[in-house]
Amino acid sequence: MIHNPLNQILAPQSIAIAGASNNMSKMGTMQFLNIIHSGFKGLIYPIHPKETEIFGHKAYKNVQDIPSTPDLGILIVPTKLVCELLESFGQKGIQHALIITAGFKETGMDGKKLETHILSIARQYGMRFLGPNCLGVINMHLPFNATVAPAPVNKGSLSLASQSGTYVAQSLLYLYKRGIALNKAISVGNEADIDLVDCLEYYLDDDTTRAIGLYIETIRRPQEFLDIAREITQKKPIIAQYVGGTDAGARSCSSHTGAMAGPNHVYQGLFNQAGVIRAHSIEEVYACGHALATQPPLKGKRIAILTNSGGPGTSMANTLDLYGLQVPPLSTTIQNRIKSYLPGHASAKNPVDLTFHTDMTLITKTLPDILLGSGDIDGLLIHGIMDTGWAELFYPVYQRFAGDSLDNLKKMFQSDMNGLIQLAKKYHKPVIVNSFFEREDHAKSTLMDNAIPCTTSPELAAMMMAVLYANYCIQNRKNSKIPEITTPKAAHEIIDANDTLNEYQAKQLLRAYNIPTCNEQLVESIDEAILAAKDMGYPLVVKGCHSDIHHKTEHQLVHLNIISEDQLVHACKRIHETQTLAQFLICEQIQGQRELMIGMKRFANFPPCITLGFGGIFTEVVNDITLRLAPLSYNDAFEMINSLKSYTMLKAFRNFADVDCWALASILTHLGQLACHFQCISEIDLNPVIIQGDKPVVVDALFLINNEREGSHLSY
Amino acid sequence: MIHNPLNQILAPQSIAIAGASNNMSKMGTMQFLNIIHSGFKGLIYPIHPKETEIFGHKAYKNVQDIPSTPDLGILIVPTKLVCELLESFGQKGIQHALIITAGFKETGMDGKKLETHILSIARQYGMRFLGPNCLGVINMHLPFNATVAPAPVNKGSLSLASQSGTYVAQSLLYLYKRGIALNKAISVGNEADIDLVDCLEYYLDDDTTRAIGLYIETIRRPQEFLDIAREITQKKPIIAQYVGGTDAGARSCSSHTGAMAGPNHVYQGLFNQAGVIRAHSIEEVYACGHALATQPPLKGKRIAILTNSGGPGTSMANTLDLYGLQVPPLSTTIQNRIKSYLPGHASAKNPVDLTFHTDMTLITKTLPDILLGSGDIDGLLIHGIMDTGWAELFYPVYQRFAGDSLDNLKKMFQSDMNGLIQLAKKYHKPVIVNSFFEREDHAKSTLMDNAIPCTTSPELAAMMMAVLYANYCIQNRKNSKIPEITTPKAAHEIIDANDTLNEYQAKQLLRAYNIPTCNEQLVESIDEAILAAKDMGYPLVVKGCHSDIHHKTEHQLVHLNIISEDQLVHACKRIHETQTLAQFLICEQIQGQRELMIGMKRFANFPPCITLGFGGIFTEVVNDITLRLAPLSYNDAFEMINSLKSYTMLKAFRNFADVDCWALASILTHLGQLACHFQCISEIDLNPVIIQGDKPVVVDALFLINNEREGSHLSY
Repeated sequence: MIHNPLNQILAPQSIAIAGASNNMSKMGTMQFLNIIHSGFKGLIYPIHPKETEIFGHKAYKNVQDIPSTPDLGILIVPTKLVCELLESFGQKGIQHALIITAGFKETGMDGKKLETHILSIARQYGMRFLGPNCLGVINMHLPFNATVAPAPVNKGSLSLASQSGTYVAQSLLYLYKRGIALNKAISVGNEADIDLVDCLEYYLDDDTTRAIGLYIETIRRPQEFLDIAREITQKKPIIAQYVGGTDAGARSCSSHTGAMAGPNHVYQGLFNQAGVIRAHSIEEVYACGHALATQPPLKGKRIAILTNSGGPGTSMANTLDLYGLQVPPLSTTIQNRIKSYLPGHASAKNPVDLTFHTDMTLITKTLPDILLGSGDIDGLLIHGIMDTGWAELFYPVYQRFAGDSLDNLKKMFQSDMNGLIQLAKKYHKPVIVNSFFEREDHAKSTLMDNAIPCTTSPELAAMMMAVLYANYCIQNRKNSKIPEITTPKAAHEIIDANDTLNEYQAKQLLRAYNIPTCNEQLVESIDEAILAAKDMGYPLVVKGCHSDIHHKTEHQLVHLNIISEDQLVHACKRIHETQTLAQFLICEQIQGQRELMIGMKRFANFPPCITLGFGGIFTEVVNDITLRLAPLSYNDAFEMINSLKSYTMLKAFRNFADVDCWALASILTHLGQLACHFQCISEIDLNPVIIQGDKPVVVDALFLINNEREGSHLSY
Repeated sequence: MIHNPLNQILAPQSIAIAGASNNMSKMGTMQFLNIIHSGFKGLIYPIHPKETEIFGHKAYKNVQDIPSTPDLGILIVPTKLVCELLESFGQKGIQHALIITAGFKETGMDGKKLETHILSIARQYGMRFLGPNCLGVINMHLPFNATVAPAPVNKGSLSLASQSGTYVAQSLLYLYKRGIALNKAISVGNEADIDLVDCLEYYLDDDTTRAIGLYIETIRRPQEFLDIAREITQKKPIIAQYVGGTDAGARSCSSHTGAMAGPNHVYQGLFNQAGVIRAHSIEEVYACGHALATQPPLKGKRIAILTNSGGPGTSMANTLDLYGLQVPPLSTTIQNRIKSYLPGHASAKNPVDLTFHTDMTLITKTLPDILLGSGDIDGLLIHGIMDTGWAELFYPVYQRFAGDSLDNLKKMFQSDMNGLIQLAKKYHKPVIVNSFFEREDHAKSTLMDNAIPCTTSPELAAMMMAVLYANYCIQNRKNSKIPEITTPKAAHEIIDANDTLNEYQAKQLLRAYNIPTCNEQLVESIDEAILAAKDMGYPLVVKGCHSDIHHKTEHQLVHLNIISEDQLVHACKRIHETQTLAQFLICEQIQGQRELMIGMKRFANFPPCITLGFGGIFTEVVNDITLRLAPLSYNDAFEMINSLKSYTMLKAFRNFADVDCWALASILTHLGQLACHFQCISEIDLNPVIIQGDKPVVVDALFLINNEREGSHLSY
């Protein structure tokens, strides 16, 4: 924690700020005033070429004139002034900077050069900085709000890091209205220096941060992201939205922060491996992040629904079911206890439906006590708590016919929320409350301010429970070590001796990593083919083998079901008709109807990505591919297998055996090692891998080698 | 329209109401006062056993004492009083009633009896009623708010019908805050008499209703729902949430309104067939319904995004892409025009990103004019419009340092929204605006009140565009007639002659409906089998055939790839070993790797449901079944085929031919006719239907017959 630059950026004791003036309509001025108004207690030194005083603060012409060395320098100046000022910060000995100014990488080549330049200035002075093109940081607990957006101080446990400044600075009122309290928020901008990984490292050690929300357009250091996120998610949850996975999203990312996005399934694989929960909207980042930050663990799938209206209760039940949670009928004992409090037509099963009811005691105290204390359930969703919101709504009618004051009416309706707040703490189970009211309702705002998540959407409330359960599963997942495999000597020999690999060599390489392939012999002539066939026995497969050949089936170079010498000779002749240079690969015929595809692809900045999916003619249909970043632990491999949508296909069904998942996991981890050992291998395609009995066997293998060998042989 | 009872229920000229008193805390009283306060201009007669006057209105001991016959009678009384009062309404000649009171079908058997009883009372007097167990109706245009919930009158074009009263009565403030204006809303309750279908019929003819939102736990008259919804969705959109499709949802429905829910895929099929857009939350019903009600058609997929912040712009682009819409780069001409207004680092591609900007003219007028007028795009999403909301937020800082009044600051920020409002009208293209502010912001509230949908979620805004496009496709889909097929004589003969059907008879029946099956002969002995084989030629399939046999493969009664007389005899012997009574079915062997499953199932109250899905060993994996209600038009059948997730499998790929979809559609429509003609057939399973070349051929057929023949032979 000591060396993380964010320590000082989020909690400086003194600040130099360039860009503020006495013109209140300027962004720099607003930001300056906002820092003061937000309650920052440290020293603040405005820098201005002309002004001598800015809103009561002595202004300095030059950063050098400041009597001490500030912890943090903030730049909200025109782009062209950034270099000069940053240099002067460096000369002054300022170690940390916040560069709000835009106009860098996101604008094209010139901007990119400028960004490289400011990075080199910072490096020169050992300075670390956030930005450029960001909106600043917020630390609700100091308090220190260095964004342009004023907001009620609302201290919470959810911390954000975002590649969009808007999601940090413009949503503060929105969050306050929804009772979502932040701890810290970081707008990372172009990430020229400090990036998401630094933010994660900082939040890992930040004790008051209980959950982390991320908005992501790109991850610039995927391996480091994976390492730190995997460590964090064992202790505190991360929820992330990633928006660069579509064509339109990727294009937009690029013009926003100059970010290079990657395909969705690569990021999904990274998130899964790291234990990062995926959000599909910024609302989910906020709302689910807030639930994760405030609620105790949801230790099981059993949710009680307590409602005074059937519709929302049913919507919650339906949504919970869709997310794989349960709404179990309560035990008879509990039902009977509940029934004693309900009107005749109400249901005590689960959902417990009080039907329309104006006394809030049942729904905020009596029944939650029974439900949370019961042992029947792991979490509680409530719909319909409200008090003064209703009074306010009804007041125009009331005033007209009863003539009393709004305050009196509110007092009449106001309910005591203390029961529910205490029960949630006492039973240490998650509680989430829905109604169509918001902060205007005393009940709702009281719950909000006491760490009970409140929603205006039954479906969102249910989904938040699902996220809590997902987090519980992540925190309790097994984590095995990554097996250490030294590069086999045989593998070195094969790679060193060949610029390209044909199928036979590819499979030799696989076998060097203990990856099972079909038995096969490579022969030069038809006579040798006949001998090999005698040796191996029929049925056989005969293939043309040549390193230039990639799509054998389309080129009629694969002949299956060869059961006689005649057929063998015929097949060899057909192969030579198509490809005179081909050798013959005489292969054991692997029997099995289930086919898998296993592969390795490289994406810019990413470690090698291992993929697993269903193969055969249904590949296009099933479109079911999981991905993880190598090197893989056995648990990574097992999770990869389990997360196949068509995972059930690997289980015993009809006449099929239960697939040996250890054997499959072993192929995946070993292939990952292979990819890490040889960076010259740019792509691997094992297709099909046929399940014979219960064992996966590689039947065809394609390796693409990048012959610019600089990177080869290096362990990742 | 003349006879729809909702005409009078939603727009009565005089009302009798039982349940109101001078006790203001009673629900009946609140409802009574709310009717008056909402601006109802008609006559209103409270009925009360003791009071002589209720809040200034003369009260009547008895409905008979009322000087005229009210259009509508409202009951908000204890359950036990409902029968008596309803009877008195009938005697008075009241033709329409609204029964708010609960305690009927939703409470169990006794309640169900009571509900049947009130229905019989109503029938006796020719009375139509809404409820029981409902929360009333709202007609914003009269105005007439007969619910317990006071709300600002906010006239719009979206009308609701809901099986949850909460979604009609408790969400009014929520809707107002979000700018969602209702036209009419109906809480249907238990639907003892008037149901969703009546609501749809009413809304079809209601000119001011431009879109319909539904909350559904069950559809009690699926055929009628399909017929009316299909007619409506050619003219105005319907968006519906269905929550009964999961186990937990279905259980909750049953205890809420006594509704019997059905499996999700059945309702999904019904919605697809009817052109009903499916919502997954009540928020989507409201928000997307509002967009549908206010926006002109989105006539293409090309959306422009105009933003002053990269994050929300990117999220919108990503979401649009996920929903199949496009964010096309704008033409150079348009980009250049836009660039002339943008700061250097801003992007004009699409998203058009102004970056942080406080002058709202560009984003509300100049650029929307260029974009909407361009011909490059079909709809416009804007993020970041705000004015006084920001001022209010900034005011504490402003007051402290500038000391001016909030009003002055607001005036300084206040922007003119008229430009955007006029442009949206002028270009007749959908415009949706997002920002994190709500009604507190003058810009947002002005847009809201001028029929421009406003959101606080970039992803929701994008999704609303997707819904607009879905509606455009629905309104422009082809509608073909349902082919009239008379019951073939041969079919009658087969059904009349048999209590059960074996495979051979089943296929005979299919052929009578011109559904292609494999060629086959049914024989009694091995000798006959040999003769048949000679006649048909090898390869053949031999099956044991007996009406009791349902799972032939598991019982080793199917022998594929019979290529010689020896194999034939062996197969027949094996069949007789397992099932001595079986006949032999000698079938042409159909070649093809693609297998479909076609079926017919019946669900309570539903017309026969025709299903189509992928078959073979991957059935479990692909889990891809579409469903439509018979009888089917050819368009229904084509849409069914097209909506298969694995539809691409039917197209030409690898060595596979393009499937003859006319032939496939023909099987589906004809099977639908068959199911409608013979209600005694309770289930049909054609599995597999093998694609041979490009033609589907039924290879196996299983029919289950319900021998309680009352319903048979009746055309549906």
